Amino acid sequence: MANENNATPAAIRALIEGELATFLGAQKTYLQSIGSELTPASDALSSFLLDGGKRLRPLFAYFGFIGAGGTHSPEVIRACASLELLQACALIHDDLMDGSDTRRGKPAIHKHFEKLHSKESAVGSSVGFGQAAAILLGDLALVYSDLALHQSGIKANVLPQVLAVHDEMRVELMAGQFLDVYEQTRSSHTVERAMTIARYKSGKYTIERPLHFGASLATTDKDHLAQVTSHYSSYGLPLGEAFQLRDDLLGVFGDPDLTGKPAGDDLREGKRTVLVAMAQESMSAADIKEFESQFGKSDLDAKGIATLRQIITDSGAPEHVETLITNLTNTATQALDTTTITAEARQVLSELAIIATKRNL
Amino acid sequence: MANENNATPAAIRALIEGELATFLGAQKTYLQSIGSELTPASDALSSFLLDGGKRLRPLFAYFGFIGAGGTHSPEVIRACASLELLQACALIHDDLMDGSDTRRGKPAIHKHFEKLHSKESAVGSSVGFGQAAAILLGDLALVYSDLALHQSGIKANVLPQVLAVHDEMRVELMAGQFLDVYEQTRSSHTVERAMTIARYKSGKYTIERPLHFGASLATTDKDHLAQVTSHYSSYGLPLGEAFQLRDDLLGVFGDPDLTGKPAGDDLREGKRTVLVAMAQESMSAADIKEFESQFGKSDLDAKGIATLRQIITDSGAPEHVETLITNLTNTATQALDTTTITAEARQVLSELAIIATKRNL
Repeated sequence: MANENNATPAAIRALIEGELATFLGAQKTYLQSIGSELTPASDALSSFLLDGGKRLRPLFAYFGFIGAGGTHSPEVIRACASLELLQACALIHDDLMDGSDTRRGKPAIHKHFEKLHSKESAVGSSVGFGQAAAILLGDLALVYSDLALHQSGIKANVLPQVLAVHDEMRVELMAGQFLDVYEQTRSSHTVERAMTIARYKSGKYTIERPLHFGASLATTDKDHLAQVTSHYSSYGLPLGEAFQLRDDLLGVFGDPDLTGKPAGDDLREGKRTVLVAMAQESMSAADIKEFESQFGKSDLDAKGIATLRQIITDSGAPEHVETLITNLTNTATQALDTTTITAEARQVLSELAIIATKRNL
Repeated sequence: MANENNATPAAIRALIEGELATFLGAQKTYLQSIGSELTPASDALSSFLLDGGKRLRPLFAYFGFIGAGGTHSPEVIRACASLELLQACALIHDDLMDGSDTRRGKPAIHKHFEKLHSKESAVGSSVGFGQAAAILLGDLALVYSDLALHQSGIKANVLPQVLAVHDEMRVELMAGQFLDVYEQTRSSHTVERAMTIARYKSGKYTIERPLHFGASLATTDKDHLAQVTSHYSSYGLPLGEAFQLRDDLLGVFGDPDLTGKPAGDDLREGKRTVLVAMAQESMSAADIKEFESQFGKSDLDAKGIATLRQIITDSGAPEHVETLITNLTNTATQALDTTTITAEARQVLSELAIIATKRNL
């Protein structure tokens, strides 16, 4: 088992990857026992899950566990790894809904199955098959996240409280996703609404709730749990917002080699992010007109992207967002100044705050 | 609480509906606290869940519980009702994947949101919004099924074994759905493959696994649980096949007023059911050609449906399927001839066998 010397984010990430590989390998064997036709589904999910990703949610969960006084065990690694399966569901369904065809530099799941269908000259619509496969693979990943958690071997006395946090987190995620989809259908947008969506869809789900999940794995002492949970919210909520704001900037200005998405992908998809809402509040009338005529065009070319980027930059929003990220991250790390959270976790959570907001992956 | 006098399927169904309404009401309040924009999502899910349905899975689960020696409690009703939320996920995503626009005589969820988008002259694609809303509402229903189960108040000592059955059931369901979607892309079909798909997608999921789920709620005595589970498989597997075969017949020959689906819907969608696979094995060469030229055409008219129905009838398959249903149902009810299952449950399970295979809803 791990000792204090290897409880770095990198070491824990490696353990998480190992558990995910083991879990997916066992599930592949099981699905093959039902029918060999399921192998492409198993393979696609394994490839999707094991070929990349920062494992932020499992890491926050694990160090949330350590911070609440937990002692390392393989059972806890397995429980934390289950969050990555939930994230796979979110990404697979999100890419399908957004019509986002690339993920980590490779075809998104719906595109992968669409291409498979075309290559095999199979019967029916390739697009339809890709969509159906992505819906089902997302559903399967969601069910797998439960299965991985339930099979993790965590203690029965913490199970009910862990399930409660897990459920709340997932309802919030789906609610945030729905708000996001609904927002895209509106003709006017506000920074406030964009903030609410970002908080539910991404911020709470990525940082605050995984920390709570970890804490609920660590202790059944209600007072201690309540105290730790409260500190984690003070750290996790601002950090979650900072994380999402960084994501907004990367979606517009990020390097494709680092994001794994085409340049300016959010502009092509017309994502109504906090960054875009802030930019729109400070644009000139002429810029607003130009922006709205190009934003969300699926065939936007490099010139169009450069134009939209320039308008956003000219609005001053990116600078403002950078300042916000710095301030929110500072607020978050200051909330770690408490002995309620173990010293080991405090140190790592400070590092994770940097990783989550200065991300280059 | 219920006593022996009201433990009829109808009485239990009423209790299940009550628990579903209570659960969905509480969730609606919670979603409204996040944003009023979520009200259409809550309303659509409530309407979908409370306006119909035979509640077969909760009923089999409940009487599986009674049959394994369980004593009625509201907690168990709540746990069994959770299966209806899982079924909502399956139906919402299934209708979207099949392009099936009607459910219980009303627009399917994706159609409902597509129409809402059109009516409000909202920004973007109405079809895309309908699809995204259906994906997310299905996901939410899946998460709700967990939440309802976890919040049901069932005893902590049965929770792990209940979760294990629940997970297995859901993996089987998703695997069956995937096999089904894949089958539609093939150029040749066999009765055997259609049977495997029907077993996983529908049979096991509707009857055998809900019974196991109920048994796992009732007892932690491993020997007793293993015995009951085995009898439930002997009853549930053939009955599940009979149930699916009835569904195949209704999909082709059913009365729209009773099925809530347009006449011959399965023919228009080109569903590769066991019935269709059997019919194809006995068709003349001319009929095969005629059948394949019309089967799965989305604009199939009444005349086309009549032609396909006639070809299927002429193949002798419907008669053969009726005999199979009778034989499978007999095999199922004979498996109830054991004192391992309580007398009260045996009687109701006999009735449910009739309801599940002679269904007119």
